[in-house]
Amino acid sequence: MAARVGRYTIRFDTPPAVMGYAAVAGKKEGEGPLADEFDRVQEDTTFGEKTWEKSESRLQNDTLNLALRKANITPNTVDIIFAGDLLNQCIGTSYGLRDFGIPFAGLFGACSTMAESLAMASVFVDNGCANVAAAITSSHFCSAERQYRYPLEYGGQRAPSAQWTVTGSGAAIVGKTGGGPFVREATFGRITDLGIKDAANMGAAMAPAAADTLKHYFDDTGASPDAFDLIVTGDLAQVGSELLRTLMQREGVTLGENYKDCGLLIFDREKQDVHAGGSGCGCAASVLCSHILNGMKNGRYKEVLFIATGALMSPVSVGQGESIPSVAHLLHLSAARA
Amino acid sequence: MAARVGRYTIRFDTPPAVMGYAAVAGKKEGEGPLADEFDRVQEDTTFGEKTWEKSESRLQNDTLNLALRKANITPNTVDIIFAGDLLNQCIGTSYGLRDFGIPFAGLFGACSTMAESLAMASVFVDNGCANVAAAITSSHFCSAERQYRYPLEYGGQRAPSAQWTVTGSGAAIVGKTGGGPFVREATFGRITDLGIKDAANMGAAMAPAAADTLKHYFDDTGASPDAFDLIVTGDLAQVGSELLRTLMQREGVTLGENYKDCGLLIFDREKQDVHAGGSGCGCAASVLCSHILNGMKNGRYKEVLFIATGALMSPVSVGQGESIPSVAHLLHLSAARA
Repeated sequence: MAARVGRYTIRFDTPPAVMGYAAVAGKKEGEGPLADEFDRVQEDTTFGEKTWEKSESRLQNDTLNLALRKANITPNTVDIIFAGDLLNQCIGTSYGLRDFGIPFAGLFGACSTMAESLAMASVFVDNGCANVAAAITSSHFCSAERQYRYPLEYGGQRAPSAQWTVTGSGAAIVGKTGGGPFVREATFGRITDLGIKDAANMGAAMAPAAADTLKHYFDDTGASPDAFDLIVTGDLAQVGSELLRTLMQREGVTLGENYKDCGLLIFDREKQDVHAGGSGCGCAASVLCSHILNGMKNGRYKEVLFIATGALMSPVSVGQGESIPSVAHLLHLSAARA
Repeated sequence: MAARVGRYTIRFDTPPAVMGYAAVAGKKEGEGPLADEFDRVQEDTTFGEKTWEKSESRLQNDTLNLALRKANITPNTVDIIFAGDLLNQCIGTSYGLRDFGIPFAGLFGACSTMAESLAMASVFVDNGCANVAAAITSSHFCSAERQYRYPLEYGGQRAPSAQWTVTGSGAAIVGKTGGGPFVREATFGRITDLGIKDAANMGAAMAPAAADTLKHYFDDTGASPDAFDLIVTGDLAQVGSELLRTLMQREGVTLGENYKDCGLLIFDREKQDVHAGGSGCGCAASVLCSHILNGMKNGRYKEVLFIATGALMSPVSVGQGESIPSVAHLLHLSAARA
């Protein structure tokens, strides 16, 4: 069973366990600081497929297979999978997962999908709705570029505030038992829109959602930032993470050295041409399912707040002059169950 | 708490209650057989907005407001809303719901979204993760046509097997208490793909998913079709629902007079030019949240199986020669709690 803590937060009486996880990343990500933490780096970013959309499906398929293997289970023991991606109608996911035969609950949370899916998996396991549940998402630089921006061949210039979509995927398998890490609490975010209209500045659009959810979590639980070894956002990157610090400061909450962003962890902005940093569903997912969960297993991190943020716009809504609504979902992960 | 029954089905020990629900439909739907069952029929299908996407957001916004009013609650008492739609990046939902301030879990289940969202809401309420949860989805003929097919002005010819996207939305509010109807069981479906590639024949693409999930439900529970006053699929329409009967017959299950399809209930195919019948997320949603739930409240239906089916393709995947994967989620609804 779970209990509600305050207005927005869910606390699991018996925290569900991450039984296994995997992250696969592309060539550029494999040249970054987390190269050694990924389960696999794919030098050929086509993944052997003829279109970028199929490449993304293959990426997601490979990642789930790896996570299942590491959890030492077969697909037919997974009761439900929560998954989604950024492509129109989430085809990275539906084609990537169709051969597994696992009951499928599709999500659209944009870049918040890793937190959303892992929270869902935890709720279903906690409640007995699933003995084992899985969570996965992905993004691919080339499929995202041509859908959201321009065909690669066009060679469009990027604004300094723009982010670089990560080619990567992360998958986590959740069960009642296992050595952990464990999912202790979850806070689902509200749609937040402060009126940002610049689609080349997603970090700024998403930071208010992260601030809203973080504030709710701290208010609900009474916890303070120094209770965590790591507070990590999904893909706010340089502009958005600085803005988050400012927004939280205004609320009286100081985010210190323990605050990081997956979009800044995955690339070396000094050496890699990624402008403000990484983005995409696969950014938070591949960093969580490598560096962060690895760090929790090897003792580097004991208590982690993982907040993945999603921008809920589309090229159509931007073209119609709309601002960019965002959402952020938070998970409190613990290395130990109690 | 919930228990797993067989391999695929979830049974709630204390079935969550539908506290309130509403359906809003467009002009054409208001000229069909269910006209008197909708809460509102909007003659002006622009809903007063300047673009069709914004019209769909307004439709979803209006429907949720009506459902909240009928449940006699305010948005700030809803702990989480599960929602999605068919538009790229689900913008019907994100813009439609952004002003409510309700924690938001975005779904992408295509036309299965009403069953998926209501199942999720039930799990969250059952587990104590939410005291009150909401489920909503929508579709709009004009936004769907131009995204999936052709601009309306083009006047493209439609195949006889094609379906007519419903302009409609349905919302349901779920809580621990209330007079019902009640959500007794849920079966999440697997992605099913028998190789259909004709995007003008969605019913045929989705029927195998409905058959897979229905068979799982009957196998898991030992129930037979005659235990239900109504077995209703979301939007298989004429071609798909005939195929479902055939597929189930092959499995030894006869679907009788009590089997209906929302895509056939919402339009009068004799009088309305809708080819094979209705489709779209809003088809199953608006029929569930009017005719079906009304019928359960007024004693017409006691036990209902509601199976919403979704085609998980996109214009891009069809253009790349892919077949159409589908999914179907099932709910067993009861007029009485026990």
